[in-house]
Amino acid sequence: MRIVQKFGGTSVGSIERIQNVAKRVKGWADNGYEVVVVVSAMSGETNRLTELIKKIDPNANRREQDVVLSSGEQVSMALLSIALQAIGIEAVSFSGWQAGISTDKVHSKARILDINSSRIDAVLKQKKIAVVAGFQGITNEQNISTLGRGGSDTSAVALSIALKADECQIYTDVDGVYSTDPRIVPEARRLNTILFEEMLEMASLGAKVLQIRSVELACKYEVPLRVLSSLTPIDENPSLEKLEGTLIIPENKKQTMTKTMEDPKIAGIAFNRDEAQIKVMGVPDRPGVAYKILSAISEQNIEVDMIVQNTSANKLTDFTYTVNRGDYARALEITEGLLSQIEATGVIGNNKMVKVSLVGVGMRSHAGIASKMFEALAQQGINILIISTSEIKISVGIDEQDLEKAVNILHQKFELEKQPA
Amino acid sequence: MRIVQKFGGTSVGSIERIQNVAKRVKGWADNGYEVVVVVSAMSGETNRLTELIKKIDPNANRREQDVVLSSGEQVSMALLSIALQAIGIEAVSFSGWQAGISTDKVHSKARILDINSSRIDAVLKQKKIAVVAGFQGITNEQNISTLGRGGSDTSAVALSIALKADECQIYTDVDGVYSTDPRIVPEARRLNTILFEEMLEMASLGAKVLQIRSVELACKYEVPLRVLSSLTPIDENPSLEKLEGTLIIPENKKQTMTKTMEDPKIAGIAFNRDEAQIKVMGVPDRPGVAYKILSAISEQNIEVDMIVQNTSANKLTDFTYTVNRGDYARALEITEGLLSQIEATGVIGNNKMVKVSLVGVGMRSHAGIASKMFEALAQQGINILIISTSEIKISVGIDEQDLEKAVNILHQKFELEKQPA
Repeated sequence: MRIVQKFGGTSVGSIERIQNVAKRVKGWADNGYEVVVVVSAMSGETNRLTELIKKIDPNANRREQDVVLSSGEQVSMALLSIALQAIGIEAVSFSGWQAGISTDKVHSKARILDINSSRIDAVLKQKKIAVVAGFQGITNEQNISTLGRGGSDTSAVALSIALKADECQIYTDVDGVYSTDPRIVPEARRLNTILFEEMLEMASLGAKVLQIRSVELACKYEVPLRVLSSLTPIDENPSLEKLEGTLIIPENKKQTMTKTMEDPKIAGIAFNRDEAQIKVMGVPDRPGVAYKILSAISEQNIEVDMIVQNTSANKLTDFTYTVNRGDYARALEITEGLLSQIEATGVIGNNKMVKVSLVGVGMRSHAGIASKMFEALAQQGINILIISTSEIKISVGIDEQDLEKAVNILHQKFELEKQPA
Repeated sequence: MRIVQKFGGTSVGSIERIQNVAKRVKGWADNGYEVVVVVSAMSGETNRLTELIKKIDPNANRREQDVVLSSGEQVSMALLSIALQAIGIEAVSFSGWQAGISTDKVHSKARILDINSSRIDAVLKQKKIAVVAGFQGITNEQNISTLGRGGSDTSAVALSIALKADECQIYTDVDGVYSTDPRIVPEARRLNTILFEEMLEMASLGAKVLQIRSVELACKYEVPLRVLSSLTPIDENPSLEKLEGTLIIPENKKQTMTKTMEDPKIAGIAFNRDEAQIKVMGVPDRPGVAYKILSAISEQNIEVDMIVQNTSANKLTDFTYTVNRGDYARALEITEGLLSQIEATGVIGNNKMVKVSLVGVGMRSHAGIASKMFEALAQQGINILIISTSEIKISVGIDEQDLEKAVNILHQKFELEKQPA
């Protein structure tokens, strides 16, 4: 069996922690697994390097920034190799270019084009551990590139694909993906499995455990991806069979990879505290109005999240959209400036809004979920400001003071604290 | 004109100093010079990285150590490129592997085999500055190698050869090579030029300004090498013609490159405080005795400096050698253990000895220099413990308390404070 294990900056944040990672990896090697370890820079290092750059030029050339930043993983990968060797496990480190990770040339947020894994393959054949720098690669001009913050997850998934790994394990400071944030709902339950599609919604909605890019990539190539904790006691006799954490899997493998035939309808509840709503009122109900508003907003590099428009009997409608709170003031100003042009009557903003979403592939075939959700919220006197749905999620905008109450009542109503049978 | 400029760790030890280096380089670029800058890691960084390694394993795998250490120059080279760009000078950084610096695979003290300078050439043709990581290269297995401490000087000379540079400039914290240490002799004079052969003797004898390897390499390929200060005020209109420092040149170019036809006989006075003497007495004057002693010493990785043996009328002789003081106790012990085997009568050690050397190609044709030297020392009552000569130097071992007096009287006697006419 071949596995790829990714350890983030916190997990390799000190010599002691690097030695702990080595011990954890050793168990797998001793049990005959072929292991590729992907590491981030030691925590704090990327910030330190970024500060050095900023002191010279906050708008420094991105090629050169990548050269500076990529040194962080170069150090941690070699230190981990040394720590592995110190406990008797042969290991060889590989920077992005040594690992054959080709990227496009968009420095600081490059995308992986291809991986030539022949060097790593050779090392695995020699029964050695390959330790690979995450977050970085090489362009076809032989320049060092970085994938952007959090790119190490993507490196790990891409290597899993290239190396046909049986599992890609992302070690973090949480022990898996939960039905919702346990700080809000103490009964929140760790999910043994979650589908890729559900994970994408959970991640993009604020339950940030994994980089969305890495989940998308794993989804596309159907690489089993597991989120698990690097803080749990080290199992000296580990195996894929008894591993905990949350396994993220493709839908077509769900039946074979999970113990239960009874899918829960809802995977979990995600929420985002960082929303703000802008409602344009009395908009003439004719083509082009939504376009005019949204293009003016996106020209300012403001990302729009939810968009809702109703038709109305009297040919006037309301057009509502949400943005990150940090963009609220600018978005409001831009929209107000467009009022006369689009012949709307007014704008109301609300930057005290949060978004709560039910996520689950199971809801596709269960029309009753939305009504059950709205009923539960109504019973608690929670006013819904905006509703947006997709095939596998239902999102509502509510007042921020209602967040905890809403998440708790929904978690309870859909019985998410219960283990699937 | 094409120049290679090397700045050490102190010169790039902070953001402010990196910005100063950028300003200094800018002057040359503005004046039409093609410039390649070689940098060391920021001062302190190599030590910091070494400490990280040692905390895990003081005997860490050298391949992995090289990966960690090479990150130091990777950061400084990119920061300097960013600093150059910030003041309007286009610059591109190159790590060892990007610069095409091939080395053997002796990790941590690799030797440069070849440089494929095509990438740097291309950048120079585009009128950009190339900033290259010193101290590092790549093996033919595509592993990162380092040249060992101080290897950045060697990188600079090797690049000068590959790029056919007109001059290789080594910026340091001194403004050149002096006739002797100015802390001992206040009248000591900065040499405008010195021959390679003289510089090799001056460097190996303790006047450490440059890495010997780099001088040897410059000598072999006849690259003009200049030592100069990175602390002097920045000349905004620099040129090779008016540059100060000390130019190290091949003998065959001395006539054309220096202003004077009258060579001084002596280039300078070097000294080494770190010597210890071991004298084996009553050694039978027959073959193999010197071999037995020296092979036993070198088996313990102790380097021997001076070796003197006299023949004697009564078939017994004294055999004397010197070592670094740090090796004195062990060398003495080893030698004492050999006494019965080599049938010698006794051993006397002296770890209060220093070595003082006159260095100068000019002395080859002037037999009177040695006698003048011994006479001067005798007049001051300085006892000579050991004498060793080569074609271009005369070294004497003297008591350490006589060092300052000896160097001063010799400097005065040979009129080294005077500018050549």
